[in-house]
Amino acid sequence: MTTFSPTLDFAKKLDAQDPLASFRDLFLLPDPNLIYLDGNSLGVLPRAAQAKAREVVDEQWGRDLIRGWNKGWWEAPVRVGDKIGNIIGASAGQTIVTDSVSLNLFKLATAALTLQPNKKRIVTDTFNFPSDLYILQGIKQLLFSSPDSGRGVRGEGEIIRIGASDNDITPDLSALESAINENTALVTLSHVVFKSGYIYDMQRITELAHAKGALVLWDLSHSVGSVPIELDKCNADFAIGCTYKYLNGGPGAPAFLYVNQKIQNKLSSPIWGWWGQKNPFGFGLEYEPADGARRFLAGTQPMLSMLIMEAGIEPTLKAGMPALREKSVLMTDYAIYLTEQVLAKYGFTVGSPIDSNRRGSHVSIRHAEGYRINRALIEEMNVIPDFREPDNLRLGFTPLYLSFAEVWEGFDRIRRVMEEKKYENYPKQKLTVT
Amino acid sequence: MTTFSPTLDFAKKLDAQDPLASFRDLFLLPDPNLIYLDGNSLGVLPRAAQAKAREVVDEQWGRDLIRGWNKGWWEAPVRVGDKIGNIIGASAGQTIVTDSVSLNLFKLATAALTLQPNKKRIVTDTFNFPSDLYILQGIKQLLFSSPDSGRGVRGEGEIIRIGASDNDITPDLSALESAINENTALVTLSHVVFKSGYIYDMQRITELAHAKGALVLWDLSHSVGSVPIELDKCNADFAIGCTYKYLNGGPGAPAFLYVNQKIQNKLSSPIWGWWGQKNPFGFGLEYEPADGARRFLAGTQPMLSMLIMEAGIEPTLKAGMPALREKSVLMTDYAIYLTEQVLAKYGFTVGSPIDSNRRGSHVSIRHAEGYRINRALIEEMNVIPDFREPDNLRLGFTPLYLSFAEVWEGFDRIRRVMEEKKYENYPKQKLTVT
Repeated sequence: MTTFSPTLDFAKKLDAQDPLASFRDLFLLPDPNLIYLDGNSLGVLPRAAQAKAREVVDEQWGRDLIRGWNKGWWEAPVRVGDKIGNIIGASAGQTIVTDSVSLNLFKLATAALTLQPNKKRIVTDTFNFPSDLYILQGIKQLLFSSPDSGRGVRGEGEIIRIGASDNDITPDLSALESAINENTALVTLSHVVFKSGYIYDMQRITELAHAKGALVLWDLSHSVGSVPIELDKCNADFAIGCTYKYLNGGPGAPAFLYVNQKIQNKLSSPIWGWWGQKNPFGFGLEYEPADGARRFLAGTQPMLSMLIMEAGIEPTLKAGMPALREKSVLMTDYAIYLTEQVLAKYGFTVGSPIDSNRRGSHVSIRHAEGYRINRALIEEMNVIPDFREPDNLRLGFTPLYLSFAEVWEGFDRIRRVMEEKKYENYPKQKLTVT
Repeated sequence: MTTFSPTLDFAKKLDAQDPLASFRDLFLLPDPNLIYLDGNSLGVLPRAAQAKAREVVDEQWGRDLIRGWNKGWWEAPVRVGDKIGNIIGASAGQTIVTDSVSLNLFKLATAALTLQPNKKRIVTDTFNFPSDLYILQGIKQLLFSSPDSGRGVRGEGEIIRIGASDNDITPDLSALESAINENTALVTLSHVVFKSGYIYDMQRITELAHAKGALVLWDLSHSVGSVPIELDKCNADFAIGCTYKYLNGGPGAPAFLYVNQKIQNKLSSPIWGWWGQKNPFGFGLEYEPADGARRFLAGTQPMLSMLIMEAGIEPTLKAGMPALREKSVLMTDYAIYLTEQVLAKYGFTVGSPIDSNRRGSHVSIRHAEGYRINRALIEEMNVIPDFREPDNLRLGFTPLYLSFAEVWEGFDRIRRVMEEKKYENYPKQKLTVT
């Protein structure tokens, strides 16, 4: 590990040695004084995406009109999917850009359950996105709510959710291993968990699941573009993920899904959409699924969002995951160092794995006043982190456009909030009403 | 009916009297010589949408970054939904903009079937979009494929598809009426059918269905923005529709759904998404549906496409449906007149209802060489219609931006294709490979 120093000069030295430093110029950063530590929620605007937006609206929609469908729109989900495949270790023909993460989880998890109708267990954990848990609960209701259920799925289903307390940073892997049994149809986890940033060992968990005959679905939303992913090499069955975080695809940009080619043609999407039909322009009245992952397309895709996103992922493709990961690790190591050197005395603790092999590109730092500190940073200090219950100030470090000097400055502003007790200007967190 | 004349001067006279003539200036029409008769497939680019695209990308994404979610993004599905509600006769709180037509049909039709689990019949027709039929077939497979099926839905389901031959312009209403029985859970039809442009009597069919205890779902894709719709007044249960045709929302712009407030809270979406969760920012681990139509939201929405679409529908809102309908009827009446006066001698017949009360805003004209004529028009004559099997040249008349002189010119160019036998330059239609 690099020997760090808590000075701005040292941070500037890291910038001087940063091989990705020039990538910052590929983005439109709105305010040189803003310290944006939320690129893990919404990436900033790439210049290429801005230019593409002009082209797509003015030229493609405005001039090509309906002809645009034959000039690259129709093929976009597959074309852009393969580009994302390059980032997640997936060879061509397995990754499709479409719909949202929630919808893609619904399609793939339902397909997994109906492929093995005699298996009734889904295994996941409380580190998973709540949004993913909701989708699984809905599938359980849809497929298993009566004693004898649809598509040959028989009997009561169960979702086993490996528990973790609010204080846990890493999951209980032995509990996970025990939960995966011969009755398990699907294991689904968030590859990098949204709160602590813990990275699951994809290869190991996939092997564990396969040993019991279960399929595995990885949510890559917090890992795509931030940590190396090898779906093919790990022999993963399914993956889903979003493109608006580290990939800089724009607010709500279409999500992606991955289906291992070994199982694609055994699966049926629950949503028989015309974009997933074998011959969509034949206007036949009977559905027949397209070959391959394409059968998981449903309806017409939002082309403006999709094509702008396609341009937005260019910097990631250009930098490549090895260089991004190297800078990301250095940056999060430095952030942990600064937490310990500068902020520990104000009561902060590190809420992310210390071992960088198990840590994504965000670092949670914990403080009992985390909620009010987050507000003070946003409202007074021109720093944007985010807050996650119960006490996590979550700091996203995006290697494409963040400098080490900004990381240093971000921590210095947190220090000033603590030193001057600025958070006391804000009310305590309201209890969430459910 | 207006007494028409087949001269350009007469068409120009109609333009001089057109109260919507100035609306053309609200759009960016790429080529003054292009006769665009495919606005019923993809509407042209409104100036307001172009300006909004700049603002959404540069200001909202580029400057507001994550803060955009609190500045109008999160509420967009409901806000834009209510605007579309104004166009379809729906009071506030019943219309939501989200996902695609296919996905919205999946959500609503599944909810309708599981609300009345003892009813096993879906009634539709062969005039419906094939894409809608595919979704229904998938639902049948998902819910009814085993003798005892999910969610309490029991026994074999059936889809009754009222047949129509390729020559039919209007449906067999008595067959439809007979098919709706006490075992019918859902009647779903395209309000304006995509081939002939026939308009179903929404009030009458809805009453027929309700009399047997069935729910009704209308696909408004070909009627929204082109014919008046009164969902509340007709007491419709559900509607879906797209925004990229007459509403000028842009390629693949998000679709909408309508759920009558009388039944909203009795229904459960099959897709339990976090945008449809009661308290999405509570990060609770158990799903609870939001009140109202909002529960049919699933995952994160493509904001760029959605907000650009919001601006795109402005001209429709400004013109209002009565004025749009008046011009549309005059235009399609004129088109039918020109078909009879100018084109009948070349073998064309009218493939749409003659009665304007039963006709949407497109007119199909039929010719055995329709496929080759369509190609000649596009490739040599700078006219863009489209072709629908077996012999329909489908001409879309968009009252917001099309002039009567353009309608006249379009027919004159078709006349020249016939007179000079230009279509003979093109190969006969290939058989579609399925």
